[in-house]
Amino acid sequence: MARYVFGVDVGGTTAKIGLLTEAGEKVEFWEIPTRTENNGEFILSDVAEAIRAKMKERNIDDSDVVGAGIGVPGAVNVDGLCYQAVNLGWEKINVVNELHSKLKLPVKAGNDANVAALGEAWKGGGQGYQNMLLVTLGTGVGGGIINEGKILAGSKGSGGEIGHINLEENEPDACGCGNHGCFEQYASATGAVRLANRILAASSEDSVLRQKEKFECKDIFDAAKAGDKVAKEIAERYGYYLGKGIAVTASVVNPEIIVLGGGVSKAGEMLFDLLMPSFNKFVFPGCKDVKFALAKLGNDAGVYGAAKMLLY
Amino acid sequence: MARYVFGVDVGGTTAKIGLLTEAGEKVEFWEIPTRTENNGEFILSDVAEAIRAKMKERNIDDSDVVGAGIGVPGAVNVDGLCYQAVNLGWEKINVVNELHSKLKLPVKAGNDANVAALGEAWKGGGQGYQNMLLVTLGTGVGGGIINEGKILAGSKGSGGEIGHINLEENEPDACGCGNHGCFEQYASATGAVRLANRILAASSEDSVLRQKEKFECKDIFDAAKAGDKVAKEIAERYGYYLGKGIAVTASVVNPEIIVLGGGVSKAGEMLFDLLMPSFNKFVFPGCKDVKFALAKLGNDAGVYGAAKMLLY
Repeated sequence: MARYVFGVDVGGTTAKIGLLTEAGEKVEFWEIPTRTENNGEFILSDVAEAIRAKMKERNIDDSDVVGAGIGVPGAVNVDGLCYQAVNLGWEKINVVNELHSKLKLPVKAGNDANVAALGEAWKGGGQGYQNMLLVTLGTGVGGGIINEGKILAGSKGSGGEIGHINLEENEPDACGCGNHGCFEQYASATGAVRLANRILAASSEDSVLRQKEKFECKDIFDAAKAGDKVAKEIAERYGYYLGKGIAVTASVVNPEIIVLGGGVSKAGEMLFDLLMPSFNKFVFPGCKDVKFALAKLGNDAGVYGAAKMLLY
Repeated sequence: MARYVFGVDVGGTTAKIGLLTEAGEKVEFWEIPTRTENNGEFILSDVAEAIRAKMKERNIDDSDVVGAGIGVPGAVNVDGLCYQAVNLGWEKINVVNELHSKLKLPVKAGNDANVAALGEAWKGGGQGYQNMLLVTLGTGVGGGIINEGKILAGSKGSGGEIGHINLEENEPDACGCGNHGCFEQYASATGAVRLANRILAASSEDSVLRQKEKFECKDIFDAAKAGDKVAKEIAERYGYYLGKGIAVTASVVNPEIIVLGGGVSKAGEMLFDLLMPSFNKFVFPGCKDVKFALAKLGNDAGVYGAAKMLLY
């Protein structure tokens, strides 16, 4: 008989929970609210209750369940120790121990970006690869490194947090992390808009982007696709930084495939054309032979990856 | 009864072989010549014969031996596939399969720098740590990443080959790899001399370095220690790049300890003072809390690490 595994992806507003088979087939995915009050003290109890309720509803015995994996928005080391999760109200907490004490099933925990990378490696854009880099291009730049099929968590859970590698020594603006010149200051959605405003301010050339009071990252790529000259220049500059940041990371961990996810990745295949010249310029030749792909699982990646942690 | 394990570190001139106990105690280390003729076809037979002869000499049965690990100067993936080892005359070869067919004992193989990192993590400067970065400062800059106690080999064996991450966009000189602005163009022994010549050429300030027809990396650090002003400036510039390269790498893999090895590391503790301002400037804050240490095993690191691969 097929055994089951649960995957949980906790966000600041809702927690996605998935019931899957060991083979990674989706049985049922649903959401519960994330209660952040009282420093998020109810979050893990709510998750445990939701899982127990689902098991009861479906007549699933403990012996039919491999366990539950959980991804949270904070640094989590290999033992499940989360150092802080600001959006959940958490200070230092061992997520594995806490959830296990409530759920009484085997538990694994990881950082949400790392867990999403594992999901993409299992059932998404990196399916079939044991060494993968996921680069998540959203409000910030996140990432996850899959090494020999497993998450590279790092000593304090910051493994794969590549958005803060330095790409520019002389960046005047500060990154959210306090440093100057971080990868995510250029390659995130907000970074793309920042680059755009700089390039627009430096010339008076006409552009559809000037006709909007406020434009978003998507507008830049749409305009570039439509042939807007300034937007193309912005997109190329964006690609330059994206390619460089990926090249540096790939030169450290030598992945077999690099998967692009997050909102900006909806720009699609054009991103590969934009990043490739810079990637090829900066990557160590021994790491050049790598595939590129787009993420496939969207917001479900974290649920898949959380479940997969139980199946190492 | 204690069991034994063999570690082999193959260089272009000699191969070091070590007989150790499972606990990592050195029983006997010795060397044999590396015969690079005929595309290095005798190298692995020679190693197998040397190990078999030692077992006979010491009356060690097959059942008393865990196996033999071997580090080679080339990229080696987790399956023991070596893509090329120029200094040995090798093209693509599966080192594990080849050595196993001759030795008839369990075999593991790795890149020499990665294997040295594992040795330092087991019995050297990184002893007791599961997540370590070794930075080898020699003629080039090499490295090895130990993740959860194991070598991060990468998909094609170039994991931890950090000497070629880009640190300068506008470097006019080409690196040996063909790129411009690689970490090792600044932080290797030859890189230090290159930086020195640039700084000396840019001023006419007196320096003991000008009194030598040709100086080496060691002379720079000796002069800096002795108070030579220009040498101090060179050492600071060297430290800037060393700190930046380490910061970028640490921001990707989040090690618990960073160990400096190779010839330049003989400059000792002063390297930490030199690199720290730049490391702190560029590292992702979540990866800042890391220890620094000097390598301890010197040329024996590879033998220890090669043996340790059998004891994962």
